Amino acid sequence: MTTADFRLEHDFLGEREIPNQAYYGIQTLRALENFAITGIPLSSEPLFVRALAYVKKAAALANHELGVLPEGIAKAIAAACDRVAAGEFNDQFPTDMIQGGAGTSVNMNANEVIANVALEIMGHQKGEYQFCHPNNHVNCSQSTNDAYPTAFRIALSHKLVSYSEGLGELAEAFAAKGDEFRDVLKMGRTQLQDAVPMSMGDEFRAFATNLREELARIADSRLLISEINMGATAIGTGVNAPHGYAELVTRHLSTIAELDLVLAGDLFEATYDTGAYVQLSGVLKRTAVKLSKICNDLRLLSSGPRCGINEINLPALQPGSSIMPGKVNPVIPEVVNQTAFYVIGADLTVTMAAEAGQLQLNVMEPVISFALFTSISYMTNACRTLREKCVVGITANRQHAADLVYGSVGIVTQLNPVLGYEASADIAKEALRTGKSVHDIAVTERGLLSQEKWDEIFTFENLIRPDFIR
Amino acid sequence: MTTADFRLEHDFLGEREIPNQAYYGIQTLRALENFAITGIPLSSEPLFVRALAYVKKAAALANHELGVLPEGIAKAIAAACDRVAAGEFNDQFPTDMIQGGAGTSVNMNANEVIANVALEIMGHQKGEYQFCHPNNHVNCSQSTNDAYPTAFRIALSHKLVSYSEGLGELAEAFAAKGDEFRDVLKMGRTQLQDAVPMSMGDEFRAFATNLREELARIADSRLLISEINMGATAIGTGVNAPHGYAELVTRHLSTIAELDLVLAGDLFEATYDTGAYVQLSGVLKRTAVKLSKICNDLRLLSSGPRCGINEINLPALQPGSSIMPGKVNPVIPEVVNQTAFYVIGADLTVTMAAEAGQLQLNVMEPVISFALFTSISYMTNACRTLREKCVVGITANRQHAADLVYGSVGIVTQLNPVLGYEASADIAKEALRTGKSVHDIAVTERGLLSQEKWDEIFTFENLIRPDFIR
Amino acid sequence: MTTADFRLEHDFLGEREIPNQAYYGIQTLRALENFAITGIPLSSEPLFVRALAYVKKAAALANHELGVLPEGIAKAIAAACDRVAAGEFNDQFPTDMIQGGAGTSVNMNANEVIANVALEIMGHQKGEYQFCHPNNHVNCSQSTNDAYPTAFRIALSHKLVSYSEGLGELAEAFAAKGDEFRDVLKMGRTQLQDAVPMSMGDEFRAFATNLREELARIADSRLLISEINMGATAIGTGVNAPHGYAELVTRHLSTIAELDLVLAGDLFEATYDTGAYVQLSGVLKRTAVKLSKICNDLRLLSSGPRCGINEINLPALQPGSSIMPGKVNPVIPEVVNQTAFYVIGADLTVTMAAEAGQLQLNVMEPVISFALFTSISYMTNACRTLREKCVVGITANRQHAADLVYGSVGIVTQLNPVLGYEASADIAKEALRTGKSVHDIAVTERGLLSQEKWDEIFTFENLIRPDFIR
Amino acid sequence: MTTADFRLEHDFLGEREIPNQAYYGIQTLRALENFAITGIPLSSEPLFVRALAYVKKAAALANHELGVLPEGIAKAIAAACDRVAAGEFNDQFPTDMIQGGAGTSVNMNANEVIANVALEIMGHQKGEYQFCHPNNHVNCSQSTNDAYPTAFRIALSHKLVSYSEGLGELAEAFAAKGDEFRDVLKMGRTQLQDAVPMSMGDEFRAFATNLREELARIADSRLLISEINMGATAIGTGVNAPHGYAELVTRHLSTIAELDLVLAGDLFEATYDTGAYVQLSGVLKRTAVKLSKICNDLRLLSSGPRCGINEINLPALQPGSSIMPGKVNPVIPEVVNQTAFYVIGADLTVTMAAEAGQLQLNVMEPVISFALFTSISYMTNACRTLREKCVVGITANRQHAADLVYGSVGIVTQLNPVLGYEASADIAKEALRTGKSVHDIAVTERGLLSQEKWDEIFTFENLIRPDFIR
Repeated sequence: MTTADFRLEHDFLGEREIPNQAYYGIQTLRALENFAITGIPLSSEPLFVRALAYVKKAAALANHELGVLPEGIAKAIAAACDRVAAGEFNDQFPTDMIQGGAGTSVNMNANEVIANVALEIMGHQKGEYQFCHPNNHVNCSQSTNDAYPTAFRIALSHKLVSYSEGLGELAEAFAAKGDEFRDVLKMGRTQLQDAVPMSMGDEFRAFATNLREELARIADSRLLISEINMGATAIGTGVNAPHGYAELVTRHLSTIAELDLVLAGDLFEATYDTGAYVQLSGVLKRTAVKLSKICNDLRLLSSGPRCGINEINLPALQPGSSIMPGKVNPVIPEVVNQTAFYVIGADLTVTMAAEAGQLQLNVMEPVISFALFTSISYMTNACRTLREKCVVGITANRQHAADLVYGSVGIVTQLNPVLGYEASADIAKEALRTGKSVHDIAVTERGLLSQEKWDEIFTFENLIRPDFIR
Repeated sequence: MTTADFRLEHDFLGEREIPNQAYYGIQTLRALENFAITGIPLSSEPLFVRALAYVKKAAALANHELGVLPEGIAKAIAAACDRVAAGEFNDQFPTDMIQGGAGTSVNMNANEVIANVALEIMGHQKGEYQFCHPNNHVNCSQSTNDAYPTAFRIALSHKLVSYSEGLGELAEAFAAKGDEFRDVLKMGRTQLQDAVPMSMGDEFRAFATNLREELARIADSRLLISEINMGATAIGTGVNAPHGYAELVTRHLSTIAELDLVLAGDLFEATYDTGAYVQLSGVLKRTAVKLSKICNDLRLLSSGPRCGINEINLPALQPGSSIMPGKVNPVIPEVVNQTAFYVIGADLTVTMAAEAGQLQLNVMEPVISFALFTSISYMTNACRTLREKCVVGITANRQHAADLVYGSVGIVTQLNPVLGYEASADIAKEALRTGKSVHDIAVTERGLLSQEKWDEIFTFENLIRPDFIR
Repeated sequence: MTTADFRLEHDFLGEREIPNQAYYGIQTLRALENFAITGIPLSSEPLFVRALAYVKKAAALANHELGVLPEGIAKAIAAACDRVAAGEFNDQFPTDMIQGGAGTSVNMNANEVIANVALEIMGHQKGEYQFCHPNNHVNCSQSTNDAYPTAFRIALSHKLVSYSEGLGELAEAFAAKGDEFRDVLKMGRTQLQDAVPMSMGDEFRAFATNLREELARIADSRLLISEINMGATAIGTGVNAPHGYAELVTRHLSTIAELDLVLAGDLFEATYDTGAYVQLSGVLKRTAVKLSKICNDLRLLSSGPRCGINEINLPALQPGSSIMPGKVNPVIPEVVNQTAFYVIGADLTVTMAAEAGQLQLNVMEPVISFALFTSISYMTNACRTLREKCVVGITANRQHAADLVYGSVGIVTQLNPVLGYEASADIAKEALRTGKSVHDIAVTERGLLSQEKWDEIFTFENLIRPDFIR
Repeated sequence: MTTADFRLEHDFLGEREIPNQAYYGIQTLRALENFAITGIPLSSEPLFVRALAYVKKAAALANHELGVLPEGIAKAIAAACDRVAAGEFNDQFPTDMIQGGAGTSVNMNANEVIANVALEIMGHQKGEYQFCHPNNHVNCSQSTNDAYPTAFRIALSHKLVSYSEGLGELAEAFAAKGDEFRDVLKMGRTQLQDAVPMSMGDEFRAFATNLREELARIADSRLLISEINMGATAIGTGVNAPHGYAELVTRHLSTIAELDLVLAGDLFEATYDTGAYVQLSGVLKRTAVKLSKICNDLRLLSSGPRCGINEINLPALQPGSSIMPGKVNPVIPEVVNQTAFYVIGADLTVTMAAEAGQLQLNVMEPVISFALFTSISYMTNACRTLREKCVVGITANRQHAADLVYGSVGIVTQLNPVLGYEASADIAKEALRTGKSVHDIAVTERGLLSQEKWDEIFTFENLIRPDFIR
């Protein structure tokens, strides 16, 4: 490149050459040089870039209305924000997802890109910041400490929408299986030991119930993260922001982002508090824990095919072994388990980062954003994968499942109301000792109840929804 | 002891001698022998013992009304439960807090004690179970798998009441300090670097805000844990429970426990789900994270006395060193930090245990109960300790705090609206390079603004709630 | 009590009445009042009390030899330490296991008790500290910051001995079962799917191998914690300690504690570093992870009895259900799983506490000690329980285990070298589709190998240690 | 593309079209379709791809020598492995870093790519597997269950070399600062309270000591992960591998990978054990904890510039605020703190995954590899960044640091041996109450020691390495 390919920019630490085609400026360049940890750029999370543009647009509108930003500049900034929000400049956000500086690099990245886009819209050259300055104009009435967390929260809220949909669809897929398996009789198990009979439909419907509850928890999280601190500026005093700005920018931002954003009642607390992230991370973890438990169950129930439980079949997706012919593995539950472990680990990262906040700010928000963005993405992918590649294709081994029930000792519990716990326990002991069936002992050998009574008790309906037959 | 000091009891594994004075029976004895991990007995959590008695009483009432328990036995059980609930037999609950068996030992401990107390009430001897049997009568229409988690949830809910009060009082203590420190000027700090001025009142009020939010989260948790699964019996089918029992026992239990308990809509899911515990543990963790951050701040702000920040003084509670004369340490915030670390660790225990649930039950509930009971106890103690021994006695070093502000470079931010970011930055650079004050450079040397303007900007009120003065 | 029942003690914060029978003094009293979090006193860990006495005795000897402590006082202190070390005054250590002050309360508790015991030995009254002072004499040449961690490390090292023994015995119990089950043929399983045959002996020997490796890791930990910082005093400069003291007290202490203690090369670092605790906690966690995995396996292999894998039987220890007659649960593996979850959580507590160290000291050591002491205790109990109550009584269901193998599809892998992967896969497919046995398809129907070849391949020895038969 | 652009491949689940230019085959294609969680491909870890090639080459050589692989095929495979190891085909490894199947997809990806490269070397077309088959030839005598973890371990070992170097260089950078700051007097602090004086050189040398210890721990880890299980094949029985293969392939692999690899003594245990990963992850976590503590210290010591401790200056790398002029933040320590939190979270992921192993295999290894690879990468980056961008440029504020010492109360400890603890405490109390200096009270006002004695005690050398002056 020739010198003409560069422009000079300066900040209070000095002067640097910026490639002319770059919309970002000197502070983004410094961030690029300073932070090279994950190699994963901000642009990998387009919802965050979009949310930054929303924040900057709302601020420009509010600043103009309050008389602290000239109309021409405000309009250019707003137009630039629209283009950035549309994704046109995603590649101009190269800052590493984990950075020091509490998000200043990200905020300045946005300020610089938007300033330069606005400059071109106004007919100027990139870098002619006297006409539209990243700090004075784009960042007007803002600090990183309010603009960054606000954008982060908006991005999270939007991201949770598709996650929630994916999770909901997964729950419905389980519910559909629940209906399909309504009349499949199977042994219920507690502590991995045979317990009492149940319908496989109830087992799968319970998975659906288990996950549906998470949707309400996600909605709780979205409420908490809808509280923003715009207008707090540096630490909550609102220094450098005009009167009425906080409320006005919140209104504009709600409209632009199509969210019911709420201005925090205590801007000091809101500027450093990470409680909403901890709560959200906890919700993600809770769902991960549930998904992992469900996947454990799917793997247990499909274990075998000959030396395990083998009550259900998961879709065969790939050969299961490079050496064992015919082996098919529960690869999708396995990958979901692993995703859950990632999310549980990421929750610890969020916890550590939240605890490390000091005084008027929590400087660790970037790693919180990294942890939450990746967790939500991976969970969304895991839900879709589990539904599409596994749940919808599960089939039941009906006869085998029912055979297990009738061959079990566990059905003796059904006799408690008729025979009492101790007589039932005696039958159980005999069955376990000899290998005989409960029916043989109770009806044939001991004559403790008639075949008619037995038949009344051991109908499918009475096994899965027992009447209190005495 | 002579043979007469013992009675013989049996279960389906055999016969054992029980000391005659013991109200518990053979299964509790086996539990004592089998589980010796923590050495901390069930009796250390009297709310749990009481809740077990509540459950057994409600079940007895419902069973009687539904015709499956004779009036005499039901009345005796109810009377026995009242005495157990009153704490009269706490020492009869020696089972280790962590046990295998998913709580069966705890449930049987309660069944046995209540049966024997009821027997004596009825005029029988302990162990004459033909008149009132631990399983057939006290445990009638129940399984460990519904009775145990229900009692656990009731105990948690009651325990959260006093925790919530303690936390609320701590928040109010911070708020009172916020009022007291309203007119204390101090430097706000972000990233441990001087930022902009603020009132110390706002700093302490923010602590109050931060903690008050937790009260709402605890209330959320209490709602989630108020969902119970009585009537599910073993796995959710309700086997061995009469029609209408689930709803009836829930109503009785709500009355007895003075809680709005709700019967779960899906008893299969409710019998294995530990989501409510994970959520509650997450709430405890979130509060722990916040308390730890606040204590970190208190320790920072009181650092010194000569070589640190020294804006506040914590009450001197004990000599701080066995070797350094005159040293006083922030021992209370330190012990609260450590309590927080315990709670964060216990949350991981809960997470692991929740993930380990399998099929129709989560067998790991005892360790969940151990983790949650200790966490709530420790947090309650930490809140009270922090309030009584520290917060209420905090004093401010007003002059020193204000001196720091006026000697700082950070006040230059207040000049942005008048001078612009770049001119302000230039003053800051000069101040940092030379050690001069912002006032000297801006007003005296450079004459960038008049003394009158300076005075207008640098009033206490304008520093802590800045007007947008241009 | 009358006034005569009390003595007056003072420290630089003021004066307090101490019950005359108490050997502890004013600073212990303050600690009791200040710290009430867990309710678990220091006396619950007698090895720690003993180690504190060892440290104080070694210091007294070294101080006397270096001429900074008169012989009479030194001898009395040493004699007092012997009595404290013998456990005579354990009840005089009531300080809560979690305290602020970085252990100062614990160190002063020891200093006070030892001073008063020494005073009585010397013929004085408790509290006549002019003759033997907790700080000036018992704590001579020490600070909490070297005495406390040194005692902690000695206690840990001793505690690890019995833990290591318990773990080793557990490993040997598994090895013995490995020998017993040498000729039990069973199906190996990967990903819960039938894989290839193996000997149950190899499965149990692998458990032994898995745990034996931990013994070497514990030995590593003991090496790391044998590095002490006596002589560092407050922060590592050794202020107030005479020349040569550090080396001398280390020698005395090694002799007294019967450990190869090593003086740290960098006393500044050694005074704040918690790396050895993090490493030890990690080792405990690693063993917990392994134990949990092993217990998961035991529960899987004993699942059933009719509707699970049922290859082994665990000893029946207690009725498994309050409602389901005859049910026996794997209660011992379950309690070990839960212990593991506690230890994994405690490791996080240690991690958080270690990270929270600041500058010249880590003030969070008390919660580290609480976490490590409880973890080691619980693990020791879990190992003994698992061995005594479970492993030694495990029996194999030989016929059933072998039947599973011969009925499986997994044995087809044995045919790969003869038939090739693709032909084997085709047999597997057919077997899975039709339910036929591999033998029927391969030998009878398709004639792909002779019965002789089949018999050569499918001997017990060739299944568990396959020869490469082509 | 036309049909000619594709080739048909089949496995036992069916037939699929593969783009002709692809070196991977049908099983990689299935993996791509099945697993879309992180979006981060295997190719992002070139050391892993290289290690897979090493394993396959060693196996080919051993198989040929043992007569189970024809020379022509073995040579072609070896040549193909050399090219893959050189990185020529990295883009042919698109499998997501987290997958189900315990690494089968990764192993098959390697088998397929190497088979096709070998085919071309032999003059055949891609897909003509009759001449060189992914399973029969490239995977000969192997299973995923030995090939995958072995390659993983080799990759880890190589990756640890550069991490270790980076960490060592960081330690040396701290040591160099330790030398540079040897004669800088400063206040030592414990519990954030002024303690006793020290040299800043000792503070920085302690950082070096702290990190140097980690190098030995990393070496421990490399020893543990050098144990491999080649020859175990599916579960440890070695089914399908010829006699002598395990030892021979281990020797070849040691040579090729330039590592001292050791064949595990118990192949059953080695095939499922993840202990070495847990240990390594624990080591990474321990270092992360230490780095985080050090960065916390750097941020504390550089706090200010006017309202904090301000003993050191970190290099100014970027403007610290979008609103506060002149603010410079400790951005590099901050990003290192966040990296540490990531690593601590990833350690939990490893823990969960390790605990989830079942029976003869741990299916969760892929997420373990993801966690460990990212942790090592991020830590390596963090060490380099911290050294280059921060440590080497740290300067001391000598005068300010010394002024703090002489103005402190903490220096009173130096008077203990002369005046005794109680007299010293009395001076301290007075100093704290009045604001006077220790010198003024002790020498001038009270005349407790002469100016000469004072001067003898308060030399720089006696402050940082105190003689026991009485």
